[in-house]
Amino acid sequence: MQTILIIGAGKSATVLIDYLIEKANLKNRKIILADTSLELAEKKTKGQPNAEAAILDIHDQPAREALVRRADLVISMLPAFLHPVVARDCLKFGKHFFTASYESDDLRAMAEEIENKNLLFLNECGLDPGIDHMSAMKIIDEEKKKGHEITMFKSFTGGLLAPESEDNPWKYKFTWNPRNVVLAGQGVSRFIRNGKLKFIPYHMLFRRTEPIHFDEVGEFDGYPNRDSLSYRKTYGLENIPTILRGTLRRAGFCKSWDVFVQLGLTDDSFQMDLPDNFTKRMFFNSFLPNHESRMEEDKLHELLPWIDDEVIDKIKWLGMFSDEPLPIFKGSPAKILQTLLEEKWALKADDKDMIVMQHQFEVKTAEGVEKITSSLVIKGQNQDYTAMAKTVGLPLAIAVDLFMDGKLDIKGLQLPIKPEIYLPILGELEKHGIVFNEKSEAIPA
Amino acid sequence: MQTILIIGAGKSATVLIDYLIEKANLKNRKIILADTSLELAEKKTKGQPNAEAAILDIHDQPAREALVRRADLVISMLPAFLHPVVARDCLKFGKHFFTASYESDDLRAMAEEIENKNLLFLNECGLDPGIDHMSAMKIIDEEKKKGHEITMFKSFTGGLLAPESEDNPWKYKFTWNPRNVVLAGQGVSRFIRNGKLKFIPYHMLFRRTEPIHFDEVGEFDGYPNRDSLSYRKTYGLENIPTILRGTLRRAGFCKSWDVFVQLGLTDDSFQMDLPDNFTKRMFFNSFLPNHESRMEEDKLHELLPWIDDEVIDKIKWLGMFSDEPLPIFKGSPAKILQTLLEEKWALKADDKDMIVMQHQFEVKTAEGVEKITSSLVIKGQNQDYTAMAKTVGLPLAIAVDLFMDGKLDIKGLQLPIKPEIYLPILGELEKHGIVFNEKSEAIPA
Repeated sequence: MQTILIIGAGKSATVLIDYLIEKANLKNRKIILADTSLELAEKKTKGQPNAEAAILDIHDQPAREALVRRADLVISMLPAFLHPVVARDCLKFGKHFFTASYESDDLRAMAEEIENKNLLFLNECGLDPGIDHMSAMKIIDEEKKKGHEITMFKSFTGGLLAPESEDNPWKYKFTWNPRNVVLAGQGVSRFIRNGKLKFIPYHMLFRRTEPIHFDEVGEFDGYPNRDSLSYRKTYGLENIPTILRGTLRRAGFCKSWDVFVQLGLTDDSFQMDLPDNFTKRMFFNSFLPNHESRMEEDKLHELLPWIDDEVIDKIKWLGMFSDEPLPIFKGSPAKILQTLLEEKWALKADDKDMIVMQHQFEVKTAEGVEKITSSLVIKGQNQDYTAMAKTVGLPLAIAVDLFMDGKLDIKGLQLPIKPEIYLPILGELEKHGIVFNEKSEAIPA
Repeated sequence: MQTILIIGAGKSATVLIDYLIEKANLKNRKIILADTSLELAEKKTKGQPNAEAAILDIHDQPAREALVRRADLVISMLPAFLHPVVARDCLKFGKHFFTASYESDDLRAMAEEIENKNLLFLNECGLDPGIDHMSAMKIIDEEKKKGHEITMFKSFTGGLLAPESEDNPWKYKFTWNPRNVVLAGQGVSRFIRNGKLKFIPYHMLFRRTEPIHFDEVGEFDGYPNRDSLSYRKTYGLENIPTILRGTLRRAGFCKSWDVFVQLGLTDDSFQMDLPDNFTKRMFFNSFLPNHESRMEEDKLHELLPWIDDEVIDKIKWLGMFSDEPLPIFKGSPAKILQTLLEEKWALKADDKDMIVMQHQFEVKTAEGVEKITSSLVIKGQNQDYTAMAKTVGLPLAIAVDLFMDGKLDIKGLQLPIKPEIYLPILGELEKHGIVFNEKSEAIPA
């Protein structure tokens, strides 16, 4: 009997677990779901006959190894830094290993041994990274096969609110890790445009956005996301003149968020220890120049001449000009801002999330230049079956199911960028409503 | 015979060495000058009878210890991170220890043992830190003695060009470590103004300057320098509503330098590996948005609306819009910028440097509020006897001489903030032309 070990039963694993248990019941497989909380694992296995809940402290080597030895394939839904621990167990006992996380240097160091043992270690098989790779590579490979030259590739992803839940001026709430949202974009962003290398420091990032349109759900801001240059090699586009990967926020979000970036409220590099009479207004003001009579709005206008009343309104809505006490007085500016935002950007019980992804290509054909736009919009059902859990969990679950069925004929350390991997996965995703809307138009010369 | 060991014979030690050798000849002391280069040490001891040149690899423990044992007092002119190594030797063999560098946590951990052994370890006895502490504490102690309350204290220092050498549009050349100049201000700057805590992130620093006037040499920009808050304790001004320490540049410098900061050219956090056909213009452009026809000037104006033609001219003068190849193609943006600036901001043989320092106080007296301004301007004589070498080396040399004469009656781990230290040193400095110009005016209520 085929046995699949899933380590980690957290929120983002819900859809994956359900899918694999359902397939296990149909195909007479066994699922072991291990978590530090036995209660959580039991809740998610729902007493299904072929599913077993197990308690596991990941640092308890004998217990971990005992579980890994019982499995044919191991899925790690743990925080990314723990993947190498599990991967090494899999290598030791000859088990396949799957994750939705970025392939790390630790994993790359195991590549030869993985191949020698005829195992499959598949990473980056979630949403971003995951669906982004697969859907982009499908178009890239098709265009190459037609003999077309790809001259531009941009790809944007966002984890946001479904429009019906956009009931605040920011049109934003925390649908995933708040800390990652507050720190998003830190470091330098690199890309290439018209053959020209471009580097954007963090404090310029939210001013260097571009508008991205979705027919179904309207307008967004896209900003460049870290190192786009490395994707030239991954995607086999070594000589492409323009490549950019980015992140999406609702239109208007970035201009307002930029106020926090400019003033230094997203700084995570030093600790504040503020008096416990500090109000939100005092916190905000501590990043503004001092002035005896001038109001925050005027000081902001002078410092950041491009901001408008809409921006001021959004800042105000967050309570930044209020005399309420700060929720915490110690921590980095980013941590204090996050705590403050968590009050305002909390999801309500019936709020739904949404995943948006868009690829844009320019392709030279015999007829001229063609612009291809491929868009994905996925809305969550509720706070258990979120769009995030679905789009992260389903590709990984499908990959595991296909592999167990002998339908993924590949071994070694892999990303889902080869047709033998991405074609069957994309095919299954379509059946679950994860379908890109593809448009193509000729660009006049 | 009293013996003084000086470790490090570099540029900033020249004035110190001369002073101490002269005093040694008068007072029958012995000077040992140790450096990794025997040639350099010999050049600086000039064959004087009471001075001995020695070669020393600082990591050669037996050699280092042998030298330390021969001395009564050791001066470390080494890079700051090496001070603790020498300090521990001094503790072991019961020798006094002097530096011009910031007191470190490593040194603080030795405080009790220093006291128990009845030794004097004196740090921060150069220019900044050093002369700044002494001259400020003199005024602070005087005002307190008069029963006055100090409500504002600002202190600014700059290592710049003498006006006669300001022959480029930036009025700036490298008169000290170029890397430190390029990275100056990175991290957050903290101070308090009118009782309100203020935090300025690096990318806002060069826009939050204030004009500083010197009667003798004109106008400067002052920008806040790192953590001013900690000086409240050091200076015994725990409840002062306004305290700010800052750095000086020539008026107009900061507005232009800000262009590099805003665009990301001073970023030292990532490595660029550029094609070897990269020109200066391409380098500069890689931090600007792409545009088919728009010139760099226009793109700059759009991105940074506050810049004017003067700024553009300064950027141009540095060759940033030129088609000359970059001097190096690999390195962080900051490193590439530094290499490029080193060509343009190199000192000519007859250039002279200048040190400027200004303290500003507001003091509540029985009559009202008094503003005290205390300014220091020191010009270098030539490229050996620079203002920097004089103002860093002389206070330290004087402190050592006074201590050897029994005129510094203090022991333990010390900074020059007590009258028994700063008064005799300031007295000697005056004789060498290091005199503050003090003005006082009543502020109308």
